This record gives sequence, structure tokens and C-alpha cells, in this order.
Amino acid sequence: MVIKTAAKVEHIVQSELKTNLIGLCPEPEGLIKFQPRICLQKLKELTYRSILSADLFDTEMLRELAKVAAYLQLKKISADKVLNDKIMATAFFEASTRTRLSFESAMLRLGGKTLSVAEAALTGEAKGEKLLDIGQMFNSYADIVVIRHTQQKAIQELSEYLRIPIINGGNGSDEHPTQALADWYALLKWKPDLMLGAASEEQLHLGIVGTPGSMRTVKSFLILALLFRHNISQITIVSEMADPLGVEVQSFCDSSPIPIDIKNDLQEVVGELDVIYMNSIAFLGDGYRTLGSRFKLDKESRLKKGAVVLHPLARKDELDVSLDHTRHNLYFNQADGAVFIRQALLLIVFGRLEQVLPDHLIE
Amino acid sequence: MVIKTAAKVEHIVQSELKTNLIGLCPEPEGLIKFQPRICLQKLKELTYRSILSADLFDTEMLRELAKVAAYLQLKKISADKVLNDKIMATAFFEASTRTRLSFESAMLRLGGKTLSVAEAALTGEAKGEKLLDIGQMFNSYADIVVIRHTQQKAIQELSEYLRIPIINGGNGSDEHPTQALADWYALLKWKPDLMLGAASEEQLHLGIVGTPGSMRTVKSFLILALLFRHNISQITIVSEMADPLGVEVQSFCDSSPIPIDIKNDLQEVVGELDVIYMNSIAFLGDGYRTLGSRFKLDKESRLKKGAVVLHPLARKDELDVSLDHTRHNLYFNQADGAVFIRQALLLIVFGRLEQVLPDHLIE
Amino acid sequence: MVIKTAAKVEHIVQSELKTNLIGLCPEPEGLIKFQPRICLQKLKELTYRSILSADLFDTEMLRELAKVAAYLQLKKISADKVLNDKIMATAFFEASTRTRLSFESAMLRLGGKTLSVAEAALTGEAKGEKLLDIGQMFNSYADIVVIRHTQQKAIQELSEYLRIPIINGGNGSDEHPTQALADWYALLKWKPDLMLGAASEEQLHLGIVGTPGSMRTVKSFLILALLFRHNISQITIVSEMADPLGVEVQSFCDSSPIPIDIKNDLQEVVGELDVIYMNSIAFLGDGYRTLGSRFKLDKESRLKKGAVVLHPLARKDELDVSLDHTRHNLYFNQADGAVFIRQALLLIVFGRLEQVLPDHLIE
Repeated sequence: MVIKTAAKVEHIVQSELKTNLIGLCPEPEGLIKFQPRICLQKLKELTYRSILSADLFDTEMLRELAKVAAYLQLKKISADKVLNDKIMATAFFEASTRTRLSFESAMLRLGGKTLSVAEAALTGEAKGEKLLDIGQMFNSYADIVVIRHTQQKAIQELSEYLRIPIINGGNGSDEHPTQALADWYALLKWKPDLMLGAASEEQLHLGIVGTPGSMRTVKSFLILALLFRHNISQITIVSEMADPLGVEVQSFCDSSPIPIDIKNDLQEVVGELDVIYMNSIAFLGDGYRTLGSRFKLDKESRLKKGAVVLHPLARKDELDVSLDHTRHNLYFNQADGAVFIRQALLLIVFGRLEQVLPDHLIE
Repeated sequence: MVIKTAAKVEHIVQSELKTNLIGLCPEPEGLIKFQPRICLQKLKELTYRSILSADLFDTEMLRELAKVAAYLQLKKISADKVLNDKIMATAFFEASTRTRLSFESAMLRLGGKTLSVAEAALTGEAKGEKLLDIGQMFNSYADIVVIRHTQQKAIQELSEYLRIPIINGGNGSDEHPTQALADWYALLKWKPDLMLGAASEEQLHLGIVGTPGSMRTVKSFLILALLFRHNISQITIVSEMADPLGVEVQSFCDSSPIPIDIKNDLQEVVGELDVIYMNSIAFLGDGYRTLGSRFKLDKESRLKKGAVVLHPLARKDELDVSLDHTRHNLYFNQADGAVFIRQALLLIVFGRLEQVLPDHLIE
Repeated sequence: MVIKTAAKVEHIVQSELKTNLIGLCPEPEGLIKFQPRICLQKLKELTYRSILSADLFDTEMLRELAKVAAYLQLKKISADKVLNDKIMATAFFEASTRTRLSFESAMLRLGGKTLSVAEAALTGEAKGEKLLDIGQMFNSYADIVVIRHTQQKAIQELSEYLRIPIINGGNGSDEHPTQALADWYALLKWKPDLMLGAASEEQLHLGIVGTPGSMRTVKSFLILALLFRHNISQITIVSEMADPLGVEVQSFCDSSPIPIDIKNDLQEVVGELDVIYMNSIAFLGDGYRTLGSRFKLDKESRLKKGAVVLHPLARKDELDVSLDHTRHNLYFNQADGAVFIRQALLLIVFGRLEQVLPDHLIE
């Protein structure tokens, strides 16, 4: 009999439901203050397009996408029926609750339908079914498919015969582009100046804990970070690996407009960082590995005043719960915003934005 | 080629579809005969409230809830679109088909959407995700969450950061409140006099087979049973355990207005019982155990004339199928009613009852 | 960073979305050319009927069903809301993505709701729940249930207490009737003359690779094949088994109006066959077995000009991808059509066809 909890929860629930009451809660208003109108023309570049990599997005695209998400989060546009003739299939060949639910929730909130293959790994493929046959199958069952797979190359194979858009929900050690969109949506709400695309007086020092070469969330986050050369003065990658970038990412970073350095102890630089991107799991192609103790944050960490912490979650012990109730916690806001940025993306990929945006918001 | 079955099934299906054709089939009309009008004021106590324990319900609350379920079962109120802006997440960290489907079906019948995490145990938590992070996640993905977990304390952890209502779908050996509501909905249909809240001429002798201390369905059922002191003269707990109550339930029963005794052989008392609450599985924190042979019922059991048997199902062999076609079988009616009591609960928790109740039914 | 794929996929997606662009793509128009009007009276025989075996269908029924599917595929009837008060439960006690998604997609496209028990094998039954109790459960949770099970007899047990229609989604080595409907829908689109029910000048030689006695898809396909005695001159079963038919199917074939012979090497007859029905997996009650190398097809196989290949998929290596881009490939069209034939079946079983067919299409 857990009546005490009942009472407590009731109290919490009775309180007004903001999208986030814990940690730092920047509101979306800032994103539509400077330029309230949406540039449809720009967003149309994504119509019926597959979202496979973060490098599909430039500054303007990310900005317009974030503004749509802001309107959705602020409920200034009503879009609860706009996709009611569409079906999204979520095909997760690697277990994941958070990403799958975020996409399914986003689709349902837009009136769409969902087909879930949460047990994908247990079925077709296990029976020896070819990925290209699975891709062909989705043509007639769904209008869009969100895929997660342990192998980077899986998406190429799946798209061999596919004629509907795919959204990459994480493919092995390659990318997780929509997570990166959620990450930057949170940062844009935190510093709306980043929306201006001009040099801001305050230059940010970005810290990324992890190995961009083998961790998809980190890699996708880094790709978008390079769009903000006017606002980011330094990117420090903190990793225990000798070569955290790897050949592919290294060549990508060689042309980086932002200086990138590498450290192997978070404590050493934590006091200088304005943004710390944490991550719990290093995907190694066939499993997960927890990062060492030199890469943990808790209330004792000497965080810079005003610094914020991001974490795609789920976290293990690298990010201590003692930080949850501090203003360093931007990760809950980041999690809460993920569903809105995905709603925005779905509206745009299906080319339905015009149906929900009032004229005065269209540029 | 199973054409014979085809013919048979067709025949059955062509027959009029009552909610239950097998066993005893008390109709819901009796529940709204005396007081057809619903006391909204009382039910509003549950608006946005989490349903964690059966002790949230008093006699009046249970009565009004049962009346709403009766109207829904009788289709006297149309509520097929009322929750179309709501999403229910079902997070089952312990496998269960029956409870999950019952909630999802209830939600769908009200026009709501569902997000299913049937494989919860396989994913986030397995990766070491903290329950409080999972709870935080649901804030942005759903409007209500139904949770089943093997651990009693799981719900406290999950609600740490949760700001939407939780419904306890069974937490370890603690409680399963909505099952108890379904149990009593069946009993109220069977004996509408129980609705009067006054002493009935016929006093019931209740038999509970199981250990309230370690079986959640039994515990929740017992909590509600104690509300009917005017109608229940005796509660006999039949268990093979030396101390079937345990400290927590014992202290709860010490203040019981109804005499409670304990027996360790069902056959010994079966002839005296008006209601026999059966249960197949004793949840022991980390697994299930089948009850011994002294606790089984079949057609040979010397059941009292007019006695009814309840069983939350799924049954194993403690309840023989030979009883299915007798008038002792109230368990199928109990199962069929579960979806309506859950529909009623959802309407009330979301505060949407007024939108579907015609004025003449509101008190 | 998989931008190359992104570009490629975008290009494909931007192209007009036909139901099938790969292989042979017969359009559905042919099916409604001769007799555009639907014979409702005939189809009403299936109202509220369970679909357990392919022998429920005669030539006329199959023809009318195919015409409804054709109208749905051509979007000449709008049926996107007609089942919005219905719930379909898919109970798969044997893992399957393809069949389950096909049914769920069909239901969602008609505005219906779905309840998925994809993990059925993991839950109730695993806990020792009786199939008849599971069947009883569905009465109150759903309006129709699609079942797949490893055991032939499972459906009889499940229907013991069931009062809603069941659709057999594959029961052990017995049948898979809706797969056979999808197979023949593709063949009817390929040769609309088959719709006439009269002797066609061109007589077809049908080759079936597999063992009808132990492979459900093959058995159901064969049952429907025997309806086309005016158009099929010969059926050759190609199997490595000494007795591929088994007692039950043998007795069924004894009364076959079409000569049936058996060969044990596909290469031996491949040049004579107009239709080759391939199959990758032999269900042996408790597992799967891949067919030997003498039963494979690839671009080197000396296929007859104009011959078509069918495969229920998922394929393994018996059907080489080198055939995918040839005009022998009817299997992708077969896969794409499956969702429409199932939509047609659902409309008919629920007796809702009249609500979507315009008067001028009703006979």
C-alpha cells in the first residue's frame, strides 16, 4: 500500500504541467522572437527526403526547423490531425525505448499511425531475411520508416529497394542525426543568440566527452557544432582513446572552422567549459562499454558558473543525479524537447507544414 | 484444412455478441437501477490522480466508478472520441498480456492513442537506465503511464521526476488496484444490493485463496473487501503459508471491521463460502509458484449453492475448466468487465467524464 | 556520414511512388475491366466469418475479393475511416514481422485500431496460460483477432470460447489462407483472363517448389490453384521429400480436376513452367529447414520466356537477387498487393463494404 507516494504524485500532478520543472528550463519563445516567420522555401528541400546524416543540415535549415519545433512546443500551431493518412514504421533492430517512443509519440501527436517492429531483431532478420527484402516490405506497409540497427551499413542495404523516406534512428557507430537535432534545439533555447548566425559577444567553449569516431550521438552532435563557427571559440574532445576521431571524422575535422583539441581527463578542463556534452555508452559495433571514472560529473565537479550539461540519456553513473536539480542540468530540457523537433521534422518531410502554419507565420 | 472449426466459429459469431455467454452473466443494469445519476463531485477527487493503491477508493468512489463502467458496458454513453488528444504509455517491465491489452483496449475504445513498451525489461533498464530517468522520459511522450514491475519500490523511483499520472498495473508483491476494481465490478453486478451501502439481509462469507502478504491481486482485493462491512459477515483466507498476511497486511487487518480467519485447506471450508477468490500465481519478488493441490477447485468440489468463483486469470490447473459452463463461473464476467472499469477510470483521471455524460445522468 | 545514400534515396523518393517499380508490375485495372461491379451478395457469405482455411473460397469469392482489392489499390474507393470503431488484435505466438505488419497496416489504412501481442509467446502462454483462456480474453478486448501459432491445433483451442472472428495468420504446418489470397491476387493481375472462369486459350503449367504436406503457404496456395481447372493444364510439385503431399493433402488431391505430378529437381522442369511458386522455409512443427541447392533459382536458370516467379518471402538463398530486376519477378508485386487483399477481407468480414462502395459499383 503506497498511499504516501500516491499523495506525493497527486501533488506533483496537480501542479501546472510545464514541459520541464527540473533543472534549467529555457522556454522556446526566444527562438521565434527575432524572426517569427518560417522560411518554407528552405524547409521544402527536405520534402520526402531521407534523414540519414546530420550533414544534411546547414545553419538556416537547423534554425527554421527549431522555430517550427518552438511553435509546436508552445502550441501556437495546431497539428493534431495533419498526418492522419500516414503510417510510420519503427524498425528497431537494436533495442531502444527512448528513441522509438519519441518518434511514435511525435507521430501520434500529429494524428499519424504507427507500426512498431520493436522486436525486429527477433523476427525476420533472425530467420535470415535479407535487409533489402525488409526494405521492400515497408514500401507497401508504411509511408516513412525509422530505423535503428547495430550495423552502419544496414541502412544502405535497407534502402536498396525502399521508395519511402528513411529516418536514421541510429546506425551502429555511424550517426544519430535526430538526436543531434534535439541536442541543438535545447542549446538554441538556452542561447537564442545562436539563431542570429552572426558573431555573438560571448564565445562558447564546447566540451564533448566521448569518441566521435565510434559513438554515433557524439559524431552527429559534432557535425552540427561545426555550423556555429561564429559562436564557438573552441571544441575540446575528452576521451580515453588515443585516437578518438578515427580516420573518417578526422578528415571531416581537418576542414573544421573551429579549433578542436583533445584531452583525456574531464576534470582537467571542466572549469573552462560552457557546454559539456556527456554520453554514457560507447557503441563498439557489437556491444556497449561504460566510460571510466575520469569522465564523470557530479555536484563536486568544479563546473564553470552558468555552464550547462547535455546528455542524450539513458545515463549510467557518469552523470550523477545530484546535478539534476541544479541549473547545470539542461539534459532534461533536451529530453523534453526531442519530441517537438521530431514532430517538426515529420511535418517537413511529409510536406505538410503549410497545412498547419497560419499565413502570418509563413515567409 | 480446419473447415470444421471454421463452421463452428462462424455459428458462434453469427449469434448475438453479449459481453459474456459462458458461466454466470449478471447484467450491468442492476448497478444503475437504484441511483442512475453519477456523483461527479465525488469522482473529481481522482482527476489527474495516480492510481497506486486500492486504498484510494472508498465505498462511494467504488460505487460511482462501477456505475460509469455500467453505462459504458451498456453503451448508454458514447465516449469513442473523448480522449483522442491523449496518449497512454504502457510500460511493462514484467511480461503480461492480459493487463496491458485491457488498458490499451480501454484507451483505444475512448479514441485515445497508445505507446507500448511491452519489451521494457529488454531495453532501457537492461542497459542500466535509471527508473527515474525512464519516468522523466514519459513526461514528454505520454499523458498517462500504466506500469508493471517486478519490484514494489519501482513505482516510487519511476515517479521521482514524473509529472503525469501513473496507474499501477501491478508492482511486485505490493498491489494491483485496477484488478481489484474489476473484481468488485463483477461482484457488484452479481449482488447489486452491495451498492446500497446498507446492511443486506444476506450476509456474505468471502473466501480468499492465497497469501495477501505476497500476492498483489489478493492484497488489493482484500483492501476493497473491507469496505463492505455491512454485507460481509466473514472473510476466510485459505493459504498454505504459516503467516499469509505478513506484517504490513496484518496491521491493516487488525483494524478490520470484518472478522478474518485463516485456514490451510480449501476443501475444509468450500461448502460455506459465497464467494471464492482464486489465484494461480504467488509472486515471490523474483518468480512464480503454483499453489498446492489442497487449493484446487473443480466440478467435484462441494461448492455452496449459488456460490461464485472469481479468478483474475491467467489460471493454471487450480481452477478446472469443468467449472467454466456452470453458474459458479463469475470469472469470465469478471474478465469481460475489466475493460469497462478501466475505461471509466481513464475518463475520470483525465477529467473528461462531463464531456460524455448527458445532463440527466449527472448529479 | 552516409550522405551519398541520402542523395540516392532522395532521388528515388522524389520519383512518383507506384506500388511497385521493381520486377514485373501488372496493374490492377485488368481485374475490373470485364466486370467492374462487385457482387455484394456473394461476399456477404463471409460476414463475421472466421478465415481459417483457403477452402472457404470458391472461384467467384476469390474473384470478387480481388476486385475489391483492386479498387482499394487504385484508390477508387475511399475507406480510410470505415473501421474506426473496430479493434484488431494480432496474436503471434510465432515470430513474424511480415504477416503481422501487413494486417496491422491494412487495419490502420481503414481507420481501425490495432492491439499487438507480438510477444505472445513470451507472456501468457509461457506462464502456462491456457489457449482457451487467451481466446476468451480477446472477446472483450478486440473485434477480430489474427493469430499465428506453431501448432496446427492451437486455433481450435483458441476458438473454444471465442465469439469474434479469427483470421488464421499461419498455424503450424496447416494453412496460411491470406497468404494464398495475396499470391492469387498477384496472378490474377498478371493474367486477368483467369477472372473469366472460362477456358483460356493459354493453359498454364504451375510449378510449386516445396512440400504441401508440411508447408502451410504451399498447401493454401495449392488449394486455391485447384479452383482454376479451366486455365491450369498441369501442376508440378517439386520437392526433395519422398511423399511431399502427406495423407491429408493426398486425399484432397485425389479429387483434383488438374493433373498433379511430382519431381525432385527444379532444374529438370524449370523450362516448362509458366508460374514457379518458391518458398524458403519448411515448417517442421518446431523449426525451419532450408531447401537444398537443387531447388534454387537465379539468373542462370533456364526460365521459360514470360514465366513468373512467386515467393511469399522472406527468402533465403533459394531465390537469387539477380532475378529481382527481371520481368520474372512477380514476387515484389505479390508482396505489395498483400496489404490490399487483406484490407478487402477486413471490409468484408466486418460487413462494411456497402459503406464504401459507390452504388454504381454494386451489383
